[in-house]
Formats: sequence, C-alpha cells, structure tokens
Amino acid sequence: MKIGKITIVGLGPGNISEMTPKARLAIETAEVIAGYNIYIKLIPEIIGGKKIIGTAMMQEVARCQMAIEESRAGKSVAVISSGDAGIYGMAGLIIDMILKLPESEQPKFEVVAGVSAVNAAAAILGAPLMHDFAVISLSDLMTDWELIKKRVECAAAGDFVIALYNPKSKKRVTNILEVQQILLRYKNKNTPVGIVTNAGRIDERKVISTLENFTNEEINMFSLVLIGNSQTYVKAGFMITPRGY
Amino acid sequence: MKIGKITIVGLGPGNISEMTPKARLAIETAEVIAGYNIYIKLIPEIIGGKKIIGTAMMQEVARCQMAIEESRAGKSVAVISSGDAGIYGMAGLIIDMILKLPESEQPKFEVVAGVSAVNAAAAILGAPLMHDFAVISLSDLMTDWELIKKRVECAAAGDFVIALYNPKSKKRVTNILEVQQILLRYKNKNTPVGIVTNAGRIDERKVISTLENFTNEEINMFSLVLIGNSQTYVKAGFMITPRGY
Repeated sequence: MKIGKITIVGLGPGNISEMTPKARLAIETAEVIAGYNIYIKLIPEIIGGKKIIGTAMMQEVARCQMAIEESRAGKSVAVISSGDAGIYGMAGLIIDMILKLPESEQPKFEVVAGVSAVNAAAAILGAPLMHDFAVISLSDLMTDWELIKKRVECAAAGDFVIALYNPKSKKRVTNILEVQQILLRYKNKNTPVGIVTNAGRIDERKVISTLENFTNEEINMFSLVLIGNSQTYVKAGFMITPRGY
Repeated sequence: MKIGKITIVGLGPGNISEMTPKARLAIETAEVIAGYNIYIKLIPEIIGGKKIIGTAMMQEVARCQMAIEESRAGKSVAVISSGDAGIYGMAGLIIDMILKLPESEQPKFEVVAGVSAVNAAAAILGAPLMHDFAVISLSDLMTDWELIKKRVECAAAGDFVIALYNPKSKKRVTNILEVQQILLRYKNKNTPVGIVTNAGRIDERKVISTLENFTNEEINMFSLVLIGNSQTYVKAGFMITPRGY
C-alpha cells in the first residue's frame, strides 16, 4: 500500500484571516486531520466532514502515533498546531517519530510554517520585538526548571526582549513569580511588559504593565508575555522597542 | 482633510501562498504601498496599478516619512516588510515616527503579522526551533558590535537554539566568523547548523553543516542561520531539536 503524506501545519493565531493559503490548502486536501481539540474547533469551516484525530492536551505521542498509522493506511494526514507548528508545536515530535521508523515505512512529510503566537502578540502590542529577542517556555513538564531559570537569567543578562510561552497554568502558578524575581535583578522595575491572551481570537485581550507589577494581571495558558529590553518604551497604549535609526 | 490609515504588513517569506489573507487584503485595499523595492517586486500580482513608494535599502526613515505624508494627504497606506514587519522590519520605526507627531496629526495604524523568516527557515530545515531560542541580528549598522557579541555569548551560555538574521553582507564578512569563535567556546563543534537562503522564494537553498564548518558555506544577506542547542540532531537531511516527550 502507498503510504500517505503527512503535512505538519501551523494554523496561525486562530482565525482564518491569519492562516496562510498554503496551510489552508494542506488542511483542505488532507483526508485526516490530527490535532488538539481546541484548535480543531477554531477552524470548523475548512475541516468539514473529514476524519478527525482529536485528542486532549498532553496526548501528543498518541496523536502522532495515530497520524502515522493513518498515513501508513494510505491516507494523507494534516497534523495541526496553532501558531507555528515548529515553535512548541507538533513538528519536532512527529518528525522524530517518523525518522525512527524503518526507511521503507516512513511517510513523506512537509512542515508548513504559520504566524506564531509571538508574532501575533507583538503585532497587537505595537512593535516590541524590533530588536534581538529570546523565546522561552515556562512549562517545566518536559524541561528541567533549573535550565529554564538559567535561560531566563542569560536572556536578561544579554538585554534581550523576552517572550514567555506557557507563562502560567492552573497547576503552575509560581514559575512566573520566580521568573519575575530573576528579571528584576537585571532589568529596571519599570521595564514595559505586555500580556496578550488569545491573540487573534474573538476573546483577545491585551494589557501593558511593568516588570514590577505585571504578575498582578490575569495570565493563563493562552497568554503570551513580552518583556521589553532596556530601550523599550510605552506610548499611547503601544509598546515599542526602537532600533535606533 | 481626513487622515488615511497606515497598515504595517508582513508579507511572509515572499510567495503569495505564505501571505495571510489579512495581509493580502490590507495591501489590496491600500491606495499607496511603501516598501523596499525588492519586496514590492515579490508581489506584482496584488500591487497592480497602485502608487508605490519604493526606496532602496537603508532609506527607511525617508520611506516612513513619505508614507506618513501620503496618509496625511488622505490616502490609505500599506507599509510592507518581508517576513513579519515586527521582526527587524518596518513596524518599530513607523510607529515611533507616528507617535512623535502631535496627536491630532497622527494617522491610525495597525500591524498585520506575517510568517517570519525564522519560522519559514525552520520549516524548511525540519524542526530546529522546538525548544527555547534566541534571535539575533549580526548587522552592526545600528547596534554596537560589542552588544551583539555579548548577546551571542549569553544565548550560547543558556544553550538556546540561535537564529542569526543578517549573518553576512558584501561589506560585512567577519562578524559571522567572530560569532562562530564565541559559539565554539560554549557549544560542541559538531552542533548542527542550518543555513536557509531565500526561504520560500524560487531560488530557495538549504544546507545543513556543523558549527565547526558552516562558515565555509555560502551565506549572504538573504540567508538565515540556525544553530542548534546541545540536543539538536540531524537525520535524513533534517535538523530536529527534540523536546523530550
């Protein structure tokens, strides 16, 4: 039997108008769609009557396994992530699993890039990412917390703009407070901090605060936190990191 | 006279299929398009007969000034950047210039995010960005070279995946060599390095090398260089940074 192709697709922030035509085509032409349930619900109009492998969060390995089985049964499969599939999305895991198969059993695959959450959040805040930046996930589920803290410290020492993915969840509420304390050792307490929740979705929300105060704002697992560098300023409700023209 | 709106638009990597519908609509509905000539030539089919403010590189301030003048003459203007306008693009400069005007003379503005070069390059290489990463421009035109080197050092010390924008130009050829030497102090000489040139364009080219050898490859101002972290591996021509499921 011919093995079907797997396309790993970034949906963008979560509305059709910010999904690339290439991503949309990949989904429309796939026979099977695999992805976290919440993301599948974001795009009902293009998923139509397709077969869905929709699992809850934290079942990534099972989902990829099912996607590979579908491809080996001859189906074309789109594995979807919100944002960009290559940034804390499904690309790494599924490629890793595909390449571990015997060569004759490997499906062909392609990654289709998307507008990532960090780009979407930055656009909503103004232009906070205009200079060198570091992207760090505060989820310590699969990464040692000491390493995450070290990265925060290195990024702060280098005066990077810092984007925090997975800043807080129901069970994980103190990591962001520890990170704030590390950052306060390197950055001015008045450094602008932007929080964008549900970027690009109907319930999008943005707040601009300071390094000293931002942890008083509502932050959840759909939030992205952007911390300015030493030059970042706030004006008229926008956050801008100048590049010095 | 009513002031026209300015939309700051990221085109994505440079082909229509990776431009979001929102970006396309912003360009199609604008009366005037402002952008670096090379980017305007990437999308002739949607620019049609519009008025173009196309300047050469390094004339960013003049281009933004002309865009603002057009908006103050009542025109709607799209200011375009390749990739994402918020990452080393035009968003920061033009917002900065708009917010310096007296409030009554400020055009309304909006940033439309795009697929950035780093996302596009990562998708072509496989999944190199699956863990925390730092984005650094090696252009020392507007940033002190000592600060850039310090950032490279901090990113290496934190075992970040590192994405280098503007790695090399005709006049600037030694920066990348100095960066390589810094990285070799922290990272294994066999660390995978991916180079993607003209990502998403017809003359796209990818090479996967090592930290020890990558500077022997052709690198130019349209290249993006991605340096792995300590876990990144290469298999079957793809570069993957695992996340540890």
